[in-house]
Amino acid sequence: MADKMIKDLRFRIKNRREVTPPLEGAAFHYGFNSDELDYWMDFWANHYNFTEREAHMNKYPQFKTNIQGLDIHFVRVKPQVHHDVEVLPLLMLHGWPGSVLEFYEVIPIITEYCEHNGFAVEVIVPSLPGFGFSDGATRPGLGVIEIAAVFRNLMHRLGFEKFYVQSGDFGTIIANQMVTLYPEEILGYHTNEPFLLAPNVLIPYVAGSLSPFEQSLVVDPALADRMYPILKIFLGAMEETGYLHVHATKPDTLGIGMSDSPMALFTWLMQAVSWASRNSNKFKHDGGLHDLYTPESIIDNVMYYWSNNKFTTAIRIYAETFNLRTLGTGIESIPTPVPTCTVHAKDEIIYMSPAMLKNKYTNLLSSVPLDDYGHFLAWEAPEVFSRVVIDALIEFRAYHAKNKNCYHNEL
Amino acid sequence: MADKMIKDLRFRIKNRREVTPPLEGAAFHYGFNSDELDYWMDFWANHYNFTEREAHMNKYPQFKTNIQGLDIHFVRVKPQVHHDVEVLPLLMLHGWPGSVLEFYEVIPIITEYCEHNGFAVEVIVPSLPGFGFSDGATRPGLGVIEIAAVFRNLMHRLGFEKFYVQSGDFGTIIANQMVTLYPEEILGYHTNEPFLLAPNVLIPYVAGSLSPFEQSLVVDPALADRMYPILKIFLGAMEETGYLHVHATKPDTLGIGMSDSPMALFTWLMQAVSWASRNSNKFKHDGGLHDLYTPESIIDNVMYYWSNNKFTTAIRIYAETFNLRTLGTGIESIPTPVPTCTVHAKDEIIYMSPAMLKNKYTNLLSSVPLDDYGHFLAWEAPEVFSRVVIDALIEFRAYHAKNKNCYHNEL
Repeated sequence: MADKMIKDLRFRIKNRREVTPPLEGAAFHYGFNSDELDYWMDFWANHYNFTEREAHMNKYPQFKTNIQGLDIHFVRVKPQVHHDVEVLPLLMLHGWPGSVLEFYEVIPIITEYCEHNGFAVEVIVPSLPGFGFSDGATRPGLGVIEIAAVFRNLMHRLGFEKFYVQSGDFGTIIANQMVTLYPEEILGYHTNEPFLLAPNVLIPYVAGSLSPFEQSLVVDPALADRMYPILKIFLGAMEETGYLHVHATKPDTLGIGMSDSPMALFTWLMQAVSWASRNSNKFKHDGGLHDLYTPESIIDNVMYYWSNNKFTTAIRIYAETFNLRTLGTGIESIPTPVPTCTVHAKDEIIYMSPAMLKNKYTNLLSSVPLDDYGHFLAWEAPEVFSRVVIDALIEFRAYHAKNKNCYHNEL
Repeated sequence: MADKMIKDLRFRIKNRREVTPPLEGAAFHYGFNSDELDYWMDFWANHYNFTEREAHMNKYPQFKTNIQGLDIHFVRVKPQVHHDVEVLPLLMLHGWPGSVLEFYEVIPIITEYCEHNGFAVEVIVPSLPGFGFSDGATRPGLGVIEIAAVFRNLMHRLGFEKFYVQSGDFGTIIANQMVTLYPEEILGYHTNEPFLLAPNVLIPYVAGSLSPFEQSLVVDPALADRMYPILKIFLGAMEETGYLHVHATKPDTLGIGMSDSPMALFTWLMQAVSWASRNSNKFKHDGGLHDLYTPESIIDNVMYYWSNNKFTTAIRIYAETFNLRTLGTGIESIPTPVPTCTVHAKDEIIYMSPAMLKNKYTNLLSSVPLDDYGHFLAWEAPEVFSRVVIDALIEFRAYHAKNKNCYHNEL
């Protein structure tokens, strides 16, 4: 991080303009509570240790390689194992408003070799195009389908013809394309935000609201309140997805303020983090941010957008995806045989039951409901996250072993 | 405008951070085209004459009065006429991202006495609460129903027990409450953006898509492309209303950047002005802004939000209105007998046919379709606007004269 950038950033923070006070008792209901800003801006400008945090961000080996004309940045960590040990390559895809940093606490856990697993894991964590240190496009058209090809080609470039994928948030929408377009190459797919942009999964969802019996066919009664009543879920989503609506339609207008004002960028990102972490955070004066994350890790993530001025290029992924050109392909409705495991944090922003997911993931091996945690599972609970990912890899290997046996038996 | 504010503003403009270049050929499709920013920021900082423009803004008599605990700012211009001449009081309500300035070119036309009309007009143009020089609320709950009471009380305070109302944009949603709650006091209602938040008006709209015959019952075939096909209209609206979604749900988050960054504020407001003025403006590299308005009048309007730092308090009107508390009252579905005249600019952002409007305005005296112009009719075409408003006042007077006669005949 250049001294010039840091100096400019501190100057902007200290010379920020006065903001409108919140309405009485508003907490986070009208968005980020401006009474909280002084604390955060003071922390960022005066207590956040740029040098130390830069060292933290650089603690893993990082590379860039040019794919389809874009320099793609990625973290790559290999396990320390004897060459006899089988090493599973795992592509891990972040989303918005995240970055590769979300996985920083899980990387050492996942890459640590445990003999009884029977394998080790190598992780490849790229910055999505337009995010962090990866180039954004200069022409329209780089949506999730195209990005799926970029990441498949990245894995080929690194020598992996076959590999595993893990994802959440926008990473999941990209991974959904990968498992559909390259089913022979993806050995297993784990997602902590199973989410399908497919009209056909809505049919069982709506059918489930007809009667308690229908509902019990669609969702485990213990988890039904994550999906029903539909109107409550729908209105709740409307209240929180204005950011998505703007990202998908006018990213360039929004990005101008986010480039110019550190407090604008901070609050826009952290409102999303607050909501996605716990829906009830809107009732809290501080948005619940202090409960789940260290202030350092919060500003680290904001710095990933600020230092490279990549907010606009990042959110263009919404505009390039939520349009008829991309959604009209219907790829999300096409089933895939890739073995799939899902985990469902209690406060994840959306819940889709196995009955819905099986429309797409015909080999849905397991769906693990958690009774805690939120959208940023890797960031919030790195040990829990790592455990479910390793468990999924074990399931994938067992699946392939079994299928291989079946195949041999048939001969 | 204080020197200190101007100095700070110029400093912020000149020290703006580099922005992301537009995608190739993007025009205004992804929002405000950042290639246009240098022109506008240079104009604002170096060529906009703050002193002259302040004199322009102050050219009419302006007042503040406290209503329901809020200082309400208004322009009040009386016609120069003999005391024998009947003077019609006309309340004119602006919307977002407008201000009282929208009416500055029409005020002298409307208040000029034309003997053959048989009356003169006095105009009262308030800043909506939270806009311009009017106070915003400090507690939640100041939506359009409450604001309707504020403006009715303003007119009473000024000595008008009965009066006429003219409105567009959010002013129309406020005026819809006034004509419903105070039908005895509103002598006539003219709007240049007839717009109802009432589910029952959607029934004829949807029915009109069943067949050409049904459609001909709902809308004049010459104007049908302003309403049909519904899907095209709906998707077009989705593409442009992300701003509304955020205003209605997270105004405080968005407002932080708009307080801090002049280019953020400018582009957010002017993207809306570009779209609302002509839907085809998204195909133009400059958003079509130069075609319709002087640069001075554009920056004047932005200054109304910047100088008082009122962006956040202004857009909270969306959050206080688009919620179940306000919409759940069903007021917009209640018919009103107030005589109503409407005008429909060709590129107005929404078109509702007389067949739809009559559900609410049972005395819809006229609906004038224009084959040119856009959402900001008073700003864009002050003479056309003034003409249709005066014509409406003539119709209202004729209506009352006729009804009075009827009443006497019945005795």
